[in-house]
Amino acid sequence: MNGEFDLIARYFARPAPAGVTGVGDDCALFGVAPGCQVATSTDLLIEGRHFFSNVDPRSLGHKALAVNLSDLAAMGAKPLGCLLGLSLPSVDHGWLQPFAEGFHALARRWGCPLIGGDTTRSTTGIAISVTVFGQVEADKALLRSAALPGDDIWISGTLGAADVALRMLQGSLPTDEPLLKAVRTALELPEPPMELAQGLAGLAHAALDISDGLAQDLGHILEASGCGALLRYADLPCDPALQGLDPDLVRQAVLAGGDVYQLCFTAPIERRAAIEALAGEARVRVTRVGEIQAGAGLKVVDAQGVRIPLEAVGFDHFS
Amino acid sequence: MNGEFDLIARYFARPAPAGVTGVGDDCALFGVAPGCQVATSTDLLIEGRHFFSNVDPRSLGHKALAVNLSDLAAMGAKPLGCLLGLSLPSVDHGWLQPFAEGFHALARRWGCPLIGGDTTRSTTGIAISVTVFGQVEADKALLRSAALPGDDIWISGTLGAADVALRMLQGSLPTDEPLLKAVRTALELPEPPMELAQGLAGLAHAALDISDGLAQDLGHILEASGCGALLRYADLPCDPALQGLDPDLVRQAVLAGGDVYQLCFTAPIERRAAIEALAGEARVRVTRVGEIQAGAGLKVVDAQGVRIPLEAVGFDHFS
Repeated sequence: MNGEFDLIARYFARPAPAGVTGVGDDCALFGVAPGCQVATSTDLLIEGRHFFSNVDPRSLGHKALAVNLSDLAAMGAKPLGCLLGLSLPSVDHGWLQPFAEGFHALARRWGCPLIGGDTTRSTTGIAISVTVFGQVEADKALLRSAALPGDDIWISGTLGAADVALRMLQGSLPTDEPLLKAVRTALELPEPPMELAQGLAGLAHAALDISDGLAQDLGHILEASGCGALLRYADLPCDPALQGLDPDLVRQAVLAGGDVYQLCFTAPIERRAAIEALAGEARVRVTRVGEIQAGAGLKVVDAQGVRIPLEAVGFDHFS
Repeated sequence: MNGEFDLIARYFARPAPAGVTGVGDDCALFGVAPGCQVATSTDLLIEGRHFFSNVDPRSLGHKALAVNLSDLAAMGAKPLGCLLGLSLPSVDHGWLQPFAEGFHALARRWGCPLIGGDTTRSTTGIAISVTVFGQVEADKALLRSAALPGDDIWISGTLGAADVALRMLQGSLPTDEPLLKAVRTALELPEPPMELAQGLAGLAHAALDISDGLAQDLGHILEASGCGALLRYADLPCDPALQGLDPDLVRQAVLAGGDVYQLCFTAPIERRAAIEALAGEARVRVTRVGEIQAGAGLKVVDAQGVRIPLEAVGFDHFS
């Protein structure tokens, strides 16, 4: 686009980080530590589909990177760098400045510098493509297929807040301003547990990040690992802001709500103390919520041991 | 999107290549040869901006990957794999099938398997995001900043055909069916010289791929290297299909036409024979077209040594 190079220089160029060359060249070049593999993932975010047109651009810059960092966290990988593709209908400096600030602030925090990209003019809305790279010791990556019967199932952070915020912003739930204020940060400024995740590599078995809802996402681990699971609903770390809401709504938000960007992982019972210690150092809440079992399928039970049908939380909408 | 996983499985999933794991997980994992760096680049292609809505989907699948492979070629890197982000207004199997075939055929040819991605529904047009990874021995990557006074300037392939095709398809040049047939392949099915490029790593000095037009792109090398250059217009490898066209149009197409996806590179005079031999093995035409000089600025001269002003080829439109 006209002015493409100025746009990159003005908002996105940063000094090349140590070990990274080629920034501004046809490719960026980076090294990988001996014995490590590269982990990589990409997400494409479309205006009107993945974010509201009126979303705060600083939050959007943060979230565009956060959802990708969350994929690195799910593998236990340490961030190395990222690429940004940005397609904009017009050059709006009042939008670009805070978008870039939100993006860079999170990138700095987790050592994931922007090392290349592509800006272009779109004919319609905004499209944002982010690709992240990380490294993880060979054979220590947390794969979906590594859960074993007897493993504890763990959740980092809390569940449900982002879903309630999304419902209110979409209008499917009446807006309650104090509640929206309490849950909106979970939706717009997710904080994937990067430090915890790197410590889990080699300690946990399977992991993934909860993006489509716990029940569906845990189902991916079960399918890939050839296992079943029991989840204890009463133990799930429901966000405290949801207290007092309709219990059916809370169940849906906790079990089927997406946009969480926290980890669901499995680990042997004998590693409970090590995981608690790791979470303490990383200042991240972790909760044991169930166990991996032989067989197949996900069974959720309430405090009385009575099974909660997943259809009741809208789970069938996803199949 | 609804059916996202089926879409990936049906059109894009392939058996995981050797050395690549995590396909279908949160990240793909791949290794890098000892002593090598990772080279990576991303492009975001938007319907109506980078491709016509009625373009043949098989060609589009080819080109979406080709323009990214071309960035690896420009660094002398060997492809390792790629990620695809695809945002579609609807699930059109008649479009997806040939798009995937065109993409995979080129990926297979150059050993650049699709190892991950993201499909989503768009609210408007098609958006395609491709990220490529390659490897290149540390310190052998072809950087824009590595040209030295006295270097020959080389071009792979030919120039001008893609630009003439684009002008006819955009309607700024009257359509001449036999001519369009002869030049359209250059625009829609570019073939970056991957084999030549890998051989040039460690042999050539600076390189880039010609995407915005030779004069502008060579200007990036000159700026990054702190050099000037003399180009001999009569030596430029004009596409034979352009013979007989208005000489002013041909000049514009050759010097300022984009979408070429061939290399412009510089190399010391004593490597001429090695480069010719390499090009012969790779069955790619290479042509010496000028030389890097001390100083600054690009000077283009005709067969009589008379300077051709770059303004006359529309070069000022880009500044």
